Amino acid sequence: MPHIHLKNELPGIRGLVSYRPETGRHLYALARILLGEGGKISGAERELIATYVSSLNGCKFCTQSHASAARYAFGEKSALVDEVILKGTSEQLSPMMNVLLKIASKVQQSGKEVTVELVQKAKELGATDLEIHDTVLIAAAFCMFNRYVDGLAAITPDELEAYAPMGERMITLNYQFPNNKTDGTH
Amino acid sequence: MPHIHLKNELPGIRGLVSYRPETGRHLYALARILLGEGGKISGAERELIATYVSSLNGCKFCTQSHASAARYAFGEKSALVDEVILKGTSEQLSPMMNVLLKIASKVQQSGKEVTVELVQKAKELGATDLEIHDTVLIAAAFCMFNRYVDGLAAITPDELEAYAPMGERMITLNYQFPNNKTDGTH
Repeated sequence: MPHIHLKNELPGIRGLVSYRPETGRHLYALARILLGEGGKISGAERELIATYVSSLNGCKFCTQSHASAARYAFGEKSALVDEVILKGTSEQLSPMMNVLLKIASKVQQSGKEVTVELVQKAKELGATDLEIHDTVLIAAAFCMFNRYVDGLAAITPDELEAYAPMGERMITLNYQFPNNKTDGTH
Repeated sequence: MPHIHLKNELPGIRGLVSYRPETGRHLYALARILLGEGGKISGAERELIATYVSSLNGCKFCTQSHASAARYAFGEKSALVDEVILKGTSEQLSPMMNVLLKIASKVQQSGKEVTVELVQKAKELGATDLEIHDTVLIAAAFCMFNRYVDGLAAITPDELEAYAPMGERMITLNYQFPNNKTDGTH
């Protein structure tokens, strides 16, 4: 049960942003840009960074919903999502992407864990400043989203089946700010 | 030196949001609402939560700039800012505010550290759902801002004197999105 009266029964962050749309609108707008296509990191890969950081933070709602979104976006290669949750890397991803995941895992611990050497390695493998920037900000933003969701004990479905339709909607609706229908989707 | 070429020499988060205004505008809009007046937590007290969480995350730029903002906003009672950085509590604050600082410190560790008992205690001391919500989101947001600033090695002035004018501007301009002048203020 959430720590506060949300006046809705929407799961996860959707319930929180509907309670306080003044801040919620900016959170969704941020997610829309960070998790959309951009530069050399695809939308699927951006969802993967979000999933991985959420799993490192132990946030079930964000891990499962973004894992579903990433699986939907990766299509035939969806098995790599669970591989990354398990070990932080996958041979199905580019070497650049595997280093960006490593950078994201450092940001999850502390921004100060990101080293010049690691950034240099990502650049040598093809990352430009934009990919470095967006990787750090996606990882940092999920350290916020995860704490927001768990810190207010947002509604988190137990059964994993609940997350597949959420993931599909997140990709197809691209983080459209929720209206107030309480239909239980993300 | 920042990990990426920011194309400006602005300190801290200002340099980062000027590099990528698409995401930066939403970050500033979020700060503007979270750190403005609202409910039973004053703007000064909101800056204090931001300062305390940033100090727990060891982010020098955010700690010093928000500490300066909080000192400016608290006026004659400004010494309590350093007391809170040192021990997370101050007798100059209300009992409710001291419990909200405790909740913020839990969020800094993990959202799951926030207990029903702690939330109940804050409510008994006068906090409504809004103060609980905003405390959790301010603390969560600074876990993002701190990681963003340190994860990209944003410009962080060494000398503490540099932060006083930043703090004053943060309060008086209320997180207006920076234009592209490179005048070195926050």
